[in-house]
Amino acid sequence: MVHTSRETHGVMLICFSTATMAQKLVIIDTDAGIDDAQAIMMAVAAPSLQILGITCCFGNTDVDNVCQNVLLVLSVCEHTQIPVFQGAAGPLVGATKAFSDHFGTDGLGDVLEDRDPQWKEKLQREHAVNAMIRLVATNPKQVSLVALGPLTNLALAIRLDPSFQQNLKELVIMGGNMEGKGNVSLCGEFNFVMDPESAFIVLEEYLCPTRIASWEYCCRNKLEWEFFEKLINEDTPAGRFMKMITSKCWGYSKEAMLSKRDVYFGPGFVSYDAYAVAACIDSSVVTESIECAVRVELQGELCRGMMVLDQRNKLNKSHRVSVMKTCDLTKFRQLLMASLKQPCRK
Amino acid sequence: MVHTSRETHGVMLICFSTATMAQKLVIIDTDAGIDDAQAIMMAVAAPSLQILGITCCFGNTDVDNVCQNVLLVLSVCEHTQIPVFQGAAGPLVGATKAFSDHFGTDGLGDVLEDRDPQWKEKLQREHAVNAMIRLVATNPKQVSLVALGPLTNLALAIRLDPSFQQNLKELVIMGGNMEGKGNVSLCGEFNFVMDPESAFIVLEEYLCPTRIASWEYCCRNKLEWEFFEKLINEDTPAGRFMKMITSKCWGYSKEAMLSKRDVYFGPGFVSYDAYAVAACIDSSVVTESIECAVRVELQGELCRGMMVLDQRNKLNKSHRVSVMKTCDLTKFRQLLMASLKQPCRK
Amino acid sequence: MVHTSRETHGVMLICFSTATMAQKLVIIDTDAGIDDAQAIMMAVAAPSLQILGITCCFGNTDVDNVCQNVLLVLSVCEHTQIPVFQGAAGPLVGATKAFSDHFGTDGLGDVLEDRDPQWKEKLQREHAVNAMIRLVATNPKQVSLVALGPLTNLALAIRLDPSFQQNLKELVIMGGNMEGKGNVSLCGEFNFVMDPESAFIVLEEYLCPTRIASWEYCCRNKLEWEFFEKLINEDTPAGRFMKMITSKCWGYSKEAMLSKRDVYFGPGFVSYDAYAVAACIDSSVVTESIECAVRVELQGELCRGMMVLDQRNKLNKSHRVSVMKTCDLTKFRQLLMASLKQPCRK
Amino acid sequence: MVHTSRETHGVMLICFSTATMAQKLVIIDTDAGIDDAQAIMMAVAAPSLQILGITCCFGNTDVDNVCQNVLLVLSVCEHTQIPVFQGAAGPLVGATKAFSDHFGTDGLGDVLEDRDPQWKEKLQREHAVNAMIRLVATNPKQVSLVALGPLTNLALAIRLDPSFQQNLKELVIMGGNMEGKGNVSLCGEFNFVMDPESAFIVLEEYLCPTRIASWEYCCRNKLEWEFFEKLINEDTPAGRFMKMITSKCWGYSKEAMLSKRDVYFGPGFVSYDAYAVAACIDSSVVTESIECAVRVELQGELCRGMMVLDQRNKLNKSHRVSVMKTCDLTKFRQLLMASLKQPCRK
Repeated sequence: MVHTSRETHGVMLICFSTATMAQKLVIIDTDAGIDDAQAIMMAVAAPSLQILGITCCFGNTDVDNVCQNVLLVLSVCEHTQIPVFQGAAGPLVGATKAFSDHFGTDGLGDVLEDRDPQWKEKLQREHAVNAMIRLVATNPKQVSLVALGPLTNLALAIRLDPSFQQNLKELVIMGGNMEGKGNVSLCGEFNFVMDPESAFIVLEEYLCPTRIASWEYCCRNKLEWEFFEKLINEDTPAGRFMKMITSKCWGYSKEAMLSKRDVYFGPGFVSYDAYAVAACIDSSVVTESIECAVRVELQGELCRGMMVLDQRNKLNKSHRVSVMKTCDLTKFRQLLMASLKQPCRK
Repeated sequence: MVHTSRETHGVMLICFSTATMAQKLVIIDTDAGIDDAQAIMMAVAAPSLQILGITCCFGNTDVDNVCQNVLLVLSVCEHTQIPVFQGAAGPLVGATKAFSDHFGTDGLGDVLEDRDPQWKEKLQREHAVNAMIRLVATNPKQVSLVALGPLTNLALAIRLDPSFQQNLKELVIMGGNMEGKGNVSLCGEFNFVMDPESAFIVLEEYLCPTRIASWEYCCRNKLEWEFFEKLINEDTPAGRFMKMITSKCWGYSKEAMLSKRDVYFGPGFVSYDAYAVAACIDSSVVTESIECAVRVELQGELCRGMMVLDQRNKLNKSHRVSVMKTCDLTKFRQLLMASLKQPCRK
Repeated sequence: MVHTSRETHGVMLICFSTATMAQKLVIIDTDAGIDDAQAIMMAVAAPSLQILGITCCFGNTDVDNVCQNVLLVLSVCEHTQIPVFQGAAGPLVGATKAFSDHFGTDGLGDVLEDRDPQWKEKLQREHAVNAMIRLVATNPKQVSLVALGPLTNLALAIRLDPSFQQNLKELVIMGGNMEGKGNVSLCGEFNFVMDPESAFIVLEEYLCPTRIASWEYCCRNKLEWEFFEKLINEDTPAGRFMKMITSKCWGYSKEAMLSKRDVYFGPGFVSYDAYAVAACIDSSVVTESIECAVRVELQGELCRGMMVLDQRNKLNKSHRVSVMKTCDLTKFRQLLMASLKQPCRK
Repeated sequence: MVHTSRETHGVMLICFSTATMAQKLVIIDTDAGIDDAQAIMMAVAAPSLQILGITCCFGNTDVDNVCQNVLLVLSVCEHTQIPVFQGAAGPLVGATKAFSDHFGTDGLGDVLEDRDPQWKEKLQREHAVNAMIRLVATNPKQVSLVALGPLTNLALAIRLDPSFQQNLKELVIMGGNMEGKGNVSLCGEFNFVMDPESAFIVLEEYLCPTRIASWEYCCRNKLEWEFFEKLINEDTPAGRFMKMITSKCWGYSKEAMLSKRDVYFGPGFVSYDAYAVAACIDSSVVTESIECAVRVELQGELCRGMMVLDQRNKLNKSHRVSVMKTCDLTKFRQLLMASLKQPCRK
């Protein structure tokens, strides 16, 4: 049953009650991150999703900050009923690399002053990996796992429970690259480079249906800065929050991005993780994909963490994934816009 | 209070009641394995140890066989009250290598006919890694962890709980090598080569007191075949069990070992894991050690999995371990002998 | 002075006498190969080039075959005055990989019956690497080196004479890739994968002006099968020779190529090495290039031998090369057509 | 015919005329180096050797310094008739590592003031690698090649002429290690670590009889500081020269070496390269050897450049080398002593 319907900035916003439709069960694994915050907002705003839990992983900032960021985002959206679990503090093997400052030291643009001193009590006591395993075992073949950070929790889950992946309905990943170019390293994308072994394990051993929003997919489907302005000027708690956390962040600064000309993809802003959540909410957002096997390179000064597409089937792998290629930007803009109409009780 | 005391084969055997003395709390992580069986027997026979649990890992055979082997050994020793936990089925990263046939396909010499169809029910339901974490958290700074197989469970434990190692009293490892030679590969020892990443993680991140019974330590402190004959002819349930499982195993066949002349260490039989348990029971069994930092090589066709001693402090690591060098063979023989006087209720 | 001018298949063919203009001095390093044969024919037909020598390297076939192939091509073209030198029989480090069968076992389509038993006597006695060094030292800053095979001879030349590269006028390479995809391996191009260390050395240490015809450049500028038909039906010694050697070669079989659909670049035939020679003859054949630093990945199961473009200057290298991007196909077709009007005494 | 015979410091010195006996033809490849200087002096003093040439390689210092050092040593010994050839300036692949300061910046203890401004003219114009190939081709199966530095020249020689190694009588190497420990790196010996690829190539592809004086062999056969005192106080041009170049060198300073306690091998001085030359002069200096295949590890942060002995034949290589194990120190002392009786015209 539809509760509200408002025309805002040309985007029709519709909030449903949770009771009125069959919902997709979702676990979000995140290293929040401004774009993760955006993605979580999109997910909780989606009437068709039921978020079983949010599992935290190091990545854009340390895992303690990630947990606090997730709790804060849920508080802004008035979805504090969603359980949050603390997970991996570093990569599966080797030392933790310096965290990215793409979204500031704290992952949310370094503008927040008062952190909740009680945050630890608001976390679940169960470890993220055990929670993942339990939630999926309880809902076999029904859970969509959306992974927005390094894939460490996912690798640990399959090591503790090799059958974990069999019981997933699907896996949607933001991460990896397609064309031998990268952002954080010469040939590697941030989430994969932060933990190449986990990315390797997930892409080799998760045999459930898998869709990947690669770095190039996100960058090729950049949005206009004009739209960004509209987005962050939404006068809602979520809109004001997004405006605040993007205010000092060079990753969301038109001027900074223009001065640092993107040699590959041209101007625009990219809300990486939101592309994965959008694909989970509505698969028709992705209008074209490449179906092939993929593998992560583990070696090499240049290529460690690089994702490789095996379109000619040289690896002879039977498991193929769907690598997103083109995006329905109209639908994607609608989902982004809807995400800032928060709180909007489903 | 001493219950029994018998002179057997010149070895004084003393069984204590569990109530009479402060016992060392121990978790044994094992990939049983004949030598693991021997080591477990030694541990349960030791009045000074209280075994909190036995965690199972793939290694000498697959983890299902390992669990069954451990349950069987405990049954022979009449120590079925010790909880047994199933752990890692394969290495942290990469594909599982073919299991060793050193101790037969089933790890116990391929002589056992009737496997217990109910074995799964006798296992604890908690995962080995979660059990380790819980047992150590419950008994902080009191637990000795004795690792007899690939170090996968230990690596997973520290990934799920980075504070795990801080709360250990000590870690005793059978594994690794010291001189650039190996058994399973040209430069690597079996337990480390089966999961080099886990061995690397444990030696880098476990900062508790750590002692290592390396391959060379075990091989240099080989025992005479005459002693082996005496050992397996002990007329007890444990002795008869040991005689049976070593009956077809070339690793415990004097003839096989002599024909395949050991170019490095000469004749004799080596009960690898028993050296680690012996060191845990009585540290004076180890009469000399090298104190230095160690690291595991992760790369290379020849050297992957090789342990390196940093006696000249080139790595500038602050954490040093104790690499065992010489063994009091008289004490070690006594402990082996005592282990076959089972069942011997402590 | 123009000697002849004929309109043939819509292509204007002009042969000049060698005396009438300043010529570019060229050394061709080749692993001939059908496409090398085509490229050599193009080079010897070009009035603007003076070929100082042809140096041979293993690659499409073993170096003995390569030498014979080059001698044969020069014989067909009546340019036997060009000295031919034998060079590297295998890669700089590691074992020689199986030679490609792309152009048949003998590199020239496996159709030739009578090999010249005297071929060794027609070779120069000087080693290819010493010849390169000598020819460049004699003509400092005047020689264009065109490399059509694995870069082993070039790596050896700089090891024997570190100043070798400084004295080159320019280096034109057919090899490497740009987008993380490959032909011979998942991420690597044939010439680079056959000797990654040499490719690495050349791209790090040759600081002369360098232009690269990458695999993607060649494939993106494929020619139509209709043109191929026209080309090989040229009724000249060179044309008849080319028709013969491509007659059984699947690499030049429209049917074979169509049945094995190229997932990346679509239909057409690619005469790889001819693109490099064309760029050397007339730089306006290349209409767009990327100027950036490049590096070769040496490690990794997937990426060893992959060329990486550093368009964001992450490697902080001062030396930049020119990676060809788009081709003037009209000019390229003319050069191909002219190459089959042989013999045509310059 | 014996020319002179003197009893000096208890060592019988005998100089022969070159005409009186069949001599072993020798090429010395060196990165001189104080110990190389000592080794060259030993070689030129040996009546049984005829030095065909000395080829220079980077290593202890840059190759320009090496050439000058060799010319100076020959001048001190009055053997300037021996041709000296300049060779590799850096390793086969990758960047040149910082030169060792073990023997000072100039390789000869940084005490020499006047360098010969004419040194380049005293070098042969032929490249070391070409000279090696020519000298061996001219004297097939007759030349002993003694390699005292990184093996770059040897690797290049076999790349230019694959038959080079077949025509050698034997190869004697100072380099590599045996027990997974190293000097310059944690697991690697200086000469091999300076160019692991060349060491790999030589040990894989040189199939001539090969003897190796490893780092451990040299260190285990250290000499007493008392003998060192005697040695450098020999009142001859060579003795005075040796005293001078070792005067400031911590590698030859008893005090420095004692304060920096050698955890592996205890006190004493080691003239590494002299052990290889001694083995070439008189094979009975080596009293025990291990015959086995060897290989060099190319990968790994810890083990790159490490030599591995395959005593259990796991690599299944047919070519075996002789790794020196024990030394007749009396004979070795005699050869050292004789080397400082220079000039001593053979």
